Amino acid sequence: MALLDDDRLFPADGATRRIARSLYDGIKDLPIISPHGHTEPRWFAENEPFPDPAHLIVVPDHYIFRMLVSQGVGLAELGVSSADGSPVETDGRRIWRRFAENYYLFRGTPTRLWLDHTFQNLFDLDVRLSAETADETYDAIAEKLKTEAFRPRALFERFNVEAIATTESALDDLAYHRQIRDSGWQGRVLTTYRPDAVVDPDFAGFSDNLKTLGEITGCDTGTFVGYIEAHRRRRAFFRDHGATATDHGHPTARTANLSAADASALYDRVKDGAGSAEDRELFRAQMLTEMAKLSVEDGMVMQIHAGSFRNHSDAIFESFGRDKGFDIPQPTNYVAALKPLLDVCGLEKDFTLILFTLDETVFSRELAPLAGVYPCLRLGPPWWFFDSAEGMMRFREAVTETAGFYNTVGFNDDTRAFCSIPARHDVARRVDCAYLAGLVTTGRLAEDEAFEVAHDLTYRLAKEAYRL
Amino acid sequence: MALLDDDRLFPADGATRRIARSLYDGIKDLPIISPHGHTEPRWFAENEPFPDPAHLIVVPDHYIFRMLVSQGVGLAELGVSSADGSPVETDGRRIWRRFAENYYLFRGTPTRLWLDHTFQNLFDLDVRLSAETADETYDAIAEKLKTEAFRPRALFERFNVEAIATTESALDDLAYHRQIRDSGWQGRVLTTYRPDAVVDPDFAGFSDNLKTLGEITGCDTGTFVGYIEAHRRRRAFFRDHGATATDHGHPTARTANLSAADASALYDRVKDGAGSAEDRELFRAQMLTEMAKLSVEDGMVMQIHAGSFRNHSDAIFESFGRDKGFDIPQPTNYVAALKPLLDVCGLEKDFTLILFTLDETVFSRELAPLAGVYPCLRLGPPWWFFDSAEGMMRFREAVTETAGFYNTVGFNDDTRAFCSIPARHDVARRVDCAYLAGLVTTGRLAEDEAFEVAHDLTYRLAKEAYRL
Amino acid sequence: MALLDDDRLFPADGATRRIARSLYDGIKDLPIISPHGHTEPRWFAENEPFPDPAHLIVVPDHYIFRMLVSQGVGLAELGVSSADGSPVETDGRRIWRRFAENYYLFRGTPTRLWLDHTFQNLFDLDVRLSAETADETYDAIAEKLKTEAFRPRALFERFNVEAIATTESALDDLAYHRQIRDSGWQGRVLTTYRPDAVVDPDFAGFSDNLKTLGEITGCDTGTFVGYIEAHRRRRAFFRDHGATATDHGHPTARTANLSAADASALYDRVKDGAGSAEDRELFRAQMLTEMAKLSVEDGMVMQIHAGSFRNHSDAIFESFGRDKGFDIPQPTNYVAALKPLLDVCGLEKDFTLILFTLDETVFSRELAPLAGVYPCLRLGPPWWFFDSAEGMMRFREAVTETAGFYNTVGFNDDTRAFCSIPARHDVARRVDCAYLAGLVTTGRLAEDEAFEVAHDLTYRLAKEAYRL
Repeated sequence: MALLDDDRLFPADGATRRIARSLYDGIKDLPIISPHGHTEPRWFAENEPFPDPAHLIVVPDHYIFRMLVSQGVGLAELGVSSADGSPVETDGRRIWRRFAENYYLFRGTPTRLWLDHTFQNLFDLDVRLSAETADETYDAIAEKLKTEAFRPRALFERFNVEAIATTESALDDLAYHRQIRDSGWQGRVLTTYRPDAVVDPDFAGFSDNLKTLGEITGCDTGTFVGYIEAHRRRRAFFRDHGATATDHGHPTARTANLSAADASALYDRVKDGAGSAEDRELFRAQMLTEMAKLSVEDGMVMQIHAGSFRNHSDAIFESFGRDKGFDIPQPTNYVAALKPLLDVCGLEKDFTLILFTLDETVFSRELAPLAGVYPCLRLGPPWWFFDSAEGMMRFREAVTETAGFYNTVGFNDDTRAFCSIPARHDVARRVDCAYLAGLVTTGRLAEDEAFEVAHDLTYRLAKEAYRL
Repeated sequence: MALLDDDRLFPADGATRRIARSLYDGIKDLPIISPHGHTEPRWFAENEPFPDPAHLIVVPDHYIFRMLVSQGVGLAELGVSSADGSPVETDGRRIWRRFAENYYLFRGTPTRLWLDHTFQNLFDLDVRLSAETADETYDAIAEKLKTEAFRPRALFERFNVEAIATTESALDDLAYHRQIRDSGWQGRVLTTYRPDAVVDPDFAGFSDNLKTLGEITGCDTGTFVGYIEAHRRRRAFFRDHGATATDHGHPTARTANLSAADASALYDRVKDGAGSAEDRELFRAQMLTEMAKLSVEDGMVMQIHAGSFRNHSDAIFESFGRDKGFDIPQPTNYVAALKPLLDVCGLEKDFTLILFTLDETVFSRELAPLAGVYPCLRLGPPWWFFDSAEGMMRFREAVTETAGFYNTVGFNDDTRAFCSIPARHDVARRVDCAYLAGLVTTGRLAEDEAFEVAHDLTYRLAKEAYRL
Repeated sequence: MALLDDDRLFPADGATRRIARSLYDGIKDLPIISPHGHTEPRWFAENEPFPDPAHLIVVPDHYIFRMLVSQGVGLAELGVSSADGSPVETDGRRIWRRFAENYYLFRGTPTRLWLDHTFQNLFDLDVRLSAETADETYDAIAEKLKTEAFRPRALFERFNVEAIATTESALDDLAYHRQIRDSGWQGRVLTTYRPDAVVDPDFAGFSDNLKTLGEITGCDTGTFVGYIEAHRRRRAFFRDHGATATDHGHPTARTANLSAADASALYDRVKDGAGSAEDRELFRAQMLTEMAKLSVEDGMVMQIHAGSFRNHSDAIFESFGRDKGFDIPQPTNYVAALKPLLDVCGLEKDFTLILFTLDETVFSRELAPLAGVYPCLRLGPPWWFFDSAEGMMRFREAVTETAGFYNTVGFNDDTRAFCSIPARHDVARRVDCAYLAGLVTTGRLAEDEAFEVAHDLTYRLAKEAYRL
């Protein structure tokens, strides 16, 4: 039994489907450009085999465990490590069985598409996952994971990845990236500068992080000037390890443009963990503008991922810590929020700022109009809960008419689920071809242009926007 | 002339339509589960004939009279009773003629679909309603309403209703429910605990209502502890009359988790009709959490219908009172609003909280992400203005990818328009089948799974979520 | 090569497309009613030839130059006049070449549809615009613009415009409108009363504008009573020049209903350019209600265009001034905002208030529910960034089920790009027919009714709503 329909995600209408298929045939084998994500550089540095199926596929994937939790399965039963030391399931097979018997919950979700793609194309499975097939699928995958062909570098090559960016804290020593570079292996793995731990006063350990930042850069992070210089040096260090971009995960998109004196005074209020909630939010806002100014200096592409209410459940945060599926989107404003930054850097030549949102309503109302006029702005692809067939289609429908295709930047998989990367890019390619085919059938785009745009969306725009 | 197209609401594409039709054929005759609505228990208790066509169909239906008002017809001309004693039209035939000559206004609306379904399938009409056909349709319907086959219980059975929930104030004596039970008739009519009148300090007569609540429960509602105990007893009384659920109609979804002392002090400020606007809103917020805690105790399913700005027109409210079509949705936040309640009860075993919204933007941004991780949360179907073909399709497209199907609860008709109940469920069934067929055609769901999901959405999920 | 597909914007499905085409054939040749827009009355008064292609098509069109700016082309390079006296490109051919070589940026945008329609149908071009075809298209258009057939009045007649409304400041002398009237030419060109310059305390020169208003009306604008009387007289003057409507471009939809004394005191605070930001916003709010009251008196149709954050980039505003593509939509509330005005005038007979938004989320949540009950309210068509195929389809899908068709007012082109007017109306007609065809195919509207609605949406509703 095939788990996948060859024409999946193409429009139902016959004529439109034929065009979509034709567009897709032209781009489906292009290399993967993955300019933003969360794979671990260690995998490619050490090239050790991946663990058992459950610990590769279920345990680290918040899309999977959050759905199971929503139907009453506990995180501990799924092997998710606890923060408070309480015991969790360690038997991969038992975890896999819990997952398998609840696989029907994923009907209609992108997770289901990604997993079936992975099961069929990577692991050669031809049975649908269920309680009945739990053991046979577990065994089949486990068997394959022991082979050379399923080690990280072999998969990287099999996936036809031309370049992949990981994301590291500003305090990371990037040793794995050096190890990859020094190994002689040709796979292109870049880091990305993610300074939340030293930019967000609400980040755990913020004050200590600032001290560490001072030590590793030789800058006096006791002063705002020294602190900014530390960023400047650290960004250079990241560029030496391939980075072309920075990334900023803030609760809001607020930016600020304080005078040097006010910024310095604000830094003094927050650097030791004090300062009001407004001070802390204002500091994050000011730092987005500071990062933009450094990008104007050093040419690093800036990304803002705004709008997640992190760790919504206190009880889960206390028991299991961060990133456990309880991050919830919230309304996010960009128009007033970005103005201070844009007034400073918005018209700068060669500055690129890529915006992401978890609030779809801003695509047509705010982000497309902004990106459709400010030369520095580009729109990132649909993010997180919107990295899905419907999310992508709504994105194109919402932004294209105002911002066109050329103010967007292709696809990001943004994932730590390494095996799902081909599946995720495939979904994006199919949906883009479906959208383009619809434009052709309805007389809004000539067919020859659609072929060119399909190639741009799949390959060229990502390379150019991220300067890869 | 047929008023209805047999393939209505199915996708235009031939292949997809065939699948939709096939799915629909599998579920169209399933019994109706109506777990939330506003039919009158008196109808089933007394089983008297319904009045004339206008007073059955036009006068009580806010969907109908608000559209006519929007085009300049007065509520009084439509027979809607006034609050100030001013005279209103009483002649059913005249009201019906006004309605009939304006029937073209409903083109493209769900009301038109519901009415044509009712006219054709219930009243055997084969002419489109218009000024020309007003009298013949009036006479035909009036004739039928006099027969035994059109009495409430006969219609209930003809509609194949397996269970229907009505909604009563916490102060209701539920006499009609006892009368139904004692009558020996087998129709299952349940009540639902709706305590707005004793929970919302802005509700007309709030202080007096608290006194009444104390009297009928034997509790001292002069204290917060006694007041909560009164709720506990009253909920038990409702359960004795079949209730499995409570329902809460609040202007916002705000919840709070005050200390016992603070909650008690707040109660003291608002119980006599005093307290600031913030106090009153905070009290409503606190009471949602109190109700959740009682649900954890007693197993009643909790529903929140949030986000309506009630009685928008002062003039209409003064002349005609509540529920006259001037309730308007407003932006509603759930992420921060529900956190206090969820921190208390969000991970409780066997607690179910069903959320409704009038702000569609929250489906993909807030409600699906919340319901896709908190085990207690379920999403109610599209409500009120969104109980429509487009509204339902947007709902599925917005929530399925993040929350799946199994965090939703099937359909609610939520109506007092008894005759429209089969039509409303039929629309929901058709749209769900259309959505599922689209998933099948685009390779996102296997056909055998679609049949199972269609059955779940039509029947099983509602029974399970509402514990029927 | 044809630039246009004859079936453009019709649904892909064959059966639905046939119905759409049939509906379109019934209305495509109806006269154009253009009740709101920004063409210049001078064109029709003087009837001089239009300038070169670039200065006709590129330089004045913010949709075009904002897209080019977003990809790094400077406004000065496009010939957009500067506010600070710095030099800009004046050579039409050079501007045209820059535009042509970037024409691919408009793929998938309404601008592309409008331009291709204009190129093919007005200028008889059959080559796609590009760097290669820049000169030949420039020459071909330039040649035609020199002929009598391309003078403003000839185009007006060729376009089959039955009536067009321009928009003038309350201080305008309307000399061109008199010149048109006195010329004996039969084209119907109306003015519209747009008082922002004397209503918005943040408008450049507000205080001086008030003095001018006093001088030209003979009223004492030093007092609120005199100021309102000046409006009353000025509105009469506009009606004498054909105006049937007023238009109000406010940052928000806020309205207020102050007592006469409070309104007068507020006017005294803001009239000389003082007053807080809240005072200025409150004054705009109060003035919407005052304008509504004057409309009740004099029968002028009132339009509110709310929600644009004007001149978002300080640098662009300083160098180039207003209306340079840097106006960005923002979230806009209507429910609480309009209540004060609606409590005063919402139920008035013969009062019409047409609402526009740049925040699509309010269509289903706020505007359709409001327009679906208040007799004075009507919904304007999708505005600005939403004047597009997707925007129009989303509009119909969002509002029809709640407000029907008859609380909408047909299409506005709202443009200063005269040559694009037929193209814009054609897009609206096609999308409406596509929407109606979908309703027919899915059994939501009978085919005979669809023909009637298509005619209403194209012609009748605009004439009636604007009292033309």
